[in-house]
Amino acid sequence: MYNSIKEEAYHCNMQLPQLGLVLFTFGNVSVVDRRQEVFAIKPSGVPYEELSPEHMVIVDFDGQVVEGNLRPSSDTKTHALLYKHWKEIGGITHTHSTYATAWAQAQRDIPIFGTTHADHLTVDIPCAPPMHDEMIAGNYEHETGFQIINHFAENKLDYKEVEMILVGNHAPFAWGKTGTKSVYNSAVLEQVAKMAWLTEQINPNAPRLKPALIKKHYERKHGANAYYGQ
Amino acid sequence: MYNSIKEEAYHCNMQLPQLGLVLFTFGNVSVVDRRQEVFAIKPSGVPYEELSPEHMVIVDFDGQVVEGNLRPSSDTKTHALLYKHWKEIGGITHTHSTYATAWAQAQRDIPIFGTTHADHLTVDIPCAPPMHDEMIAGNYEHETGFQIINHFAENKLDYKEVEMILVGNHAPFAWGKTGTKSVYNSAVLEQVAKMAWLTEQINPNAPRLKPALIKKHYERKHGANAYYGQ
Amino acid sequence: MYNSIKEEAYHCNMQLPQLGLVLFTFGNVSVVDRRQEVFAIKPSGVPYEELSPEHMVIVDFDGQVVEGNLRPSSDTKTHALLYKHWKEIGGITHTHSTYATAWAQAQRDIPIFGTTHADHLTVDIPCAPPMHDEMIAGNYEHETGFQIINHFAENKLDYKEVEMILVGNHAPFAWGKTGTKSVYNSAVLEQVAKMAWLTEQINPNAPRLKPALIKKHYERKHGANAYYGQ
Amino acid sequence: MYNSIKEEAYHCNMQLPQLGLVLFTFGNVSVVDRRQEVFAIKPSGVPYEELSPEHMVIVDFDGQVVEGNLRPSSDTKTHALLYKHWKEIGGITHTHSTYATAWAQAQRDIPIFGTTHADHLTVDIPCAPPMHDEMIAGNYEHETGFQIINHFAENKLDYKEVEMILVGNHAPFAWGKTGTKSVYNSAVLEQVAKMAWLTEQINPNAPRLKPALIKKHYERKHGANAYYGQ
Repeated sequence: MYNSIKEEAYHCNMQLPQLGLVLFTFGNVSVVDRRQEVFAIKPSGVPYEELSPEHMVIVDFDGQVVEGNLRPSSDTKTHALLYKHWKEIGGITHTHSTYATAWAQAQRDIPIFGTTHADHLTVDIPCAPPMHDEMIAGNYEHETGFQIINHFAENKLDYKEVEMILVGNHAPFAWGKTGTKSVYNSAVLEQVAKMAWLTEQINPNAPRLKPALIKKHYERKHGANAYYGQ
Repeated sequence: MYNSIKEEAYHCNMQLPQLGLVLFTFGNVSVVDRRQEVFAIKPSGVPYEELSPEHMVIVDFDGQVVEGNLRPSSDTKTHALLYKHWKEIGGITHTHSTYATAWAQAQRDIPIFGTTHADHLTVDIPCAPPMHDEMIAGNYEHETGFQIINHFAENKLDYKEVEMILVGNHAPFAWGKTGTKSVYNSAVLEQVAKMAWLTEQINPNAPRLKPALIKKHYERKHGANAYYGQ
Repeated sequence: MYNSIKEEAYHCNMQLPQLGLVLFTFGNVSVVDRRQEVFAIKPSGVPYEELSPEHMVIVDFDGQVVEGNLRPSSDTKTHALLYKHWKEIGGITHTHSTYATAWAQAQRDIPIFGTTHADHLTVDIPCAPPMHDEMIAGNYEHETGFQIINHFAENKLDYKEVEMILVGNHAPFAWGKTGTKSVYNSAVLEQVAKMAWLTEQINPNAPRLKPALIKKHYERKHGANAYYGQ
Repeated sequence: MYNSIKEEAYHCNMQLPQLGLVLFTFGNVSVVDRRQEVFAIKPSGVPYEELSPEHMVIVDFDGQVVEGNLRPSSDTKTHALLYKHWKEIGGITHTHSTYATAWAQAQRDIPIFGTTHADHLTVDIPCAPPMHDEMIAGNYEHETGFQIINHFAENKLDYKEVEMILVGNHAPFAWGKTGTKSVYNSAVLEQVAKMAWLTEQINPNAPRLKPALIKKHYERKHGANAYYGQ
């Protein structure tokens, strides 16, 4: 009944260590089934080398376990909330990848410095501020989802165009139309984060990418007349 | 008689090169048998690729070899002293891992900048000052153990909550309920050390993590109502 | 008819992930057939692990596809223009390799700091400024080729001696007598870029390499009396 | 007749890519036969993956080829001069390893910041200044050997205690009683160079290691009562 999303979630989770995005179990991917309104997510704290598709836990959009013997990722409620509010997301990836997490800890948006960044989004990669103490003490992971959604709303960002965020003092979340795309976005974010750090080291006054280049690179990959890929 | 701890110590030592925590033989893990009051530790200077469980040396809490034909790690007396004084430690790992060692050389505590850190401990990772000359000239490795224990006592730290330390100008030590946990803690320390360095590079005024987030992340993994893992 | 260049282009492209120069599909290599005035280039957006020699697309010097069912790399017109104007190039490599791209984003030439650099070229690695908005909005990849050629002309650089460039805010291009040589140059550029960044970190006032050393190292590899290699 | 040193030189050279110390052919190891007054060295520019023991070139202490069909490493005369003057060296390794080369390009000695350094030598790792123009224009590689020897003499360093040097603007050389030991020293140098850079990043005022710790760590590995290793 849920085999397809369990299988995809398993393969997506296994990409995280291959791409160097996680140490131990510091990450998780989920994949949604929009018709059945559930998603498959990594069980909490299970090492990647012991993982199998059957281990994936099926959870509904309120964060309740629907199927599975293992406890789901501790970040499950954040995934649930994002699926509930953002109707066109197919998968979500959360990691503590080194460079993206360093920017989150530094509480800074990642400036758009080059075409690698503009190939994927047209604005700085947003960093949501750390949450209010009441949100933290309350339903923390649920509120983390709201923190993300609110930051997008306040900054007039579209989750279909900007598929990644840093949560201040915490770490990155990325999403996309599929689980695979969300993993891809996590890896792109990590690479862009590393290059942006180096750019500022090499030239502390490095200017942001100019609008014409941002537009060109984003549109050749994502515009109406895109000509990247097959 | 000591096969179980020799086997575990062997496997723990072999994790060090796999996790990228050692160059050549710059590290060692020990595993204790509390009933027999001995521990198994890596022999000194033997390359990891030549190691086998039989090579592990059995040592008592005064640092005397009980069994084994090889000389134990030169850091053996530090392990012995920690086992003697800290009754609930099951394993100890010492490495010269790159980023943690750089903080030790810089003689700085590692500030708590994010939730990756708070998932494991609630305070800055302590850096003990370099030892007094008399301690160094005397029973050096034995005194290194005292330096660690004294630093914890002076700073009112609990070795069951803070399972790692930097020894100033030297390198990190980590411990835990098992040998495996001490290796895990060494890898976490290295990753946290790298991200803290990057955080200060990206924002020299990056603030410490606020108390509410520290409490939340530590307790969801270690508190009475922990919900991380299985 | 084009098997030879397709085979070589395939092997050159496969070197990029092996050398750590690309994430996902962020790079491409082409190999030219000067007699037939065509080149073989990677298809756009096809993952390296799925690539085969038959996938290579054959394109002429005006950027028109001559053979192949797949769309060629989105950077194809840049390759075409360079082949058209620089008659002795045999292969071209474009990547978004981490350190070289960081210098491109910082909009700085890479200073010649050591003999590793001088073994390959005698001047700073040039960084062309970002293009004018009209060039970007127009035939962008074609104009990128002109940006490279014009920067060489304005700075009196010889493409046979300086086989690499950074395009400001974008990323590096490298070339050579063969496809293999262009890949080699891309890897050298990445290594030189990393070491130059580190050099400035270690000594912000590090001086450029002096002329006698530049001359010696370049000539022992490339001069009339070269004695490097077989 | 020379099989033994050719075999050892081959294995030592093959360690360089395994230890991450070379890109392409940017390094070479030689092993000496003191009785026959010759050494075996890597041929110039031959990729490591194509290397075999038979490829090693036999050279005498004046830098003349004694046996072998291939041209020896372009750095051969530096090796020859060091063997001629320093009677107790058994092997020499030259690389352009990333972090050590960056310090050489920065023209700075590597400060002794920690016990990892002191486990191997008691002083800063010396950086010889760039050579005079006449030395460069003349018998360059031969003069490079003199530059190293003179720098040791002027600074009262003993090549049996300090088994490594940076040649300013160029790269590191390391040596030891055997070829294997010289490779080991090259890897230690690279690691110490990386950690020293990070130490200064984390604390620009990091103090040098104090004499008591330098003495203790060096002597426990190299002193009359050494107790490291078997």
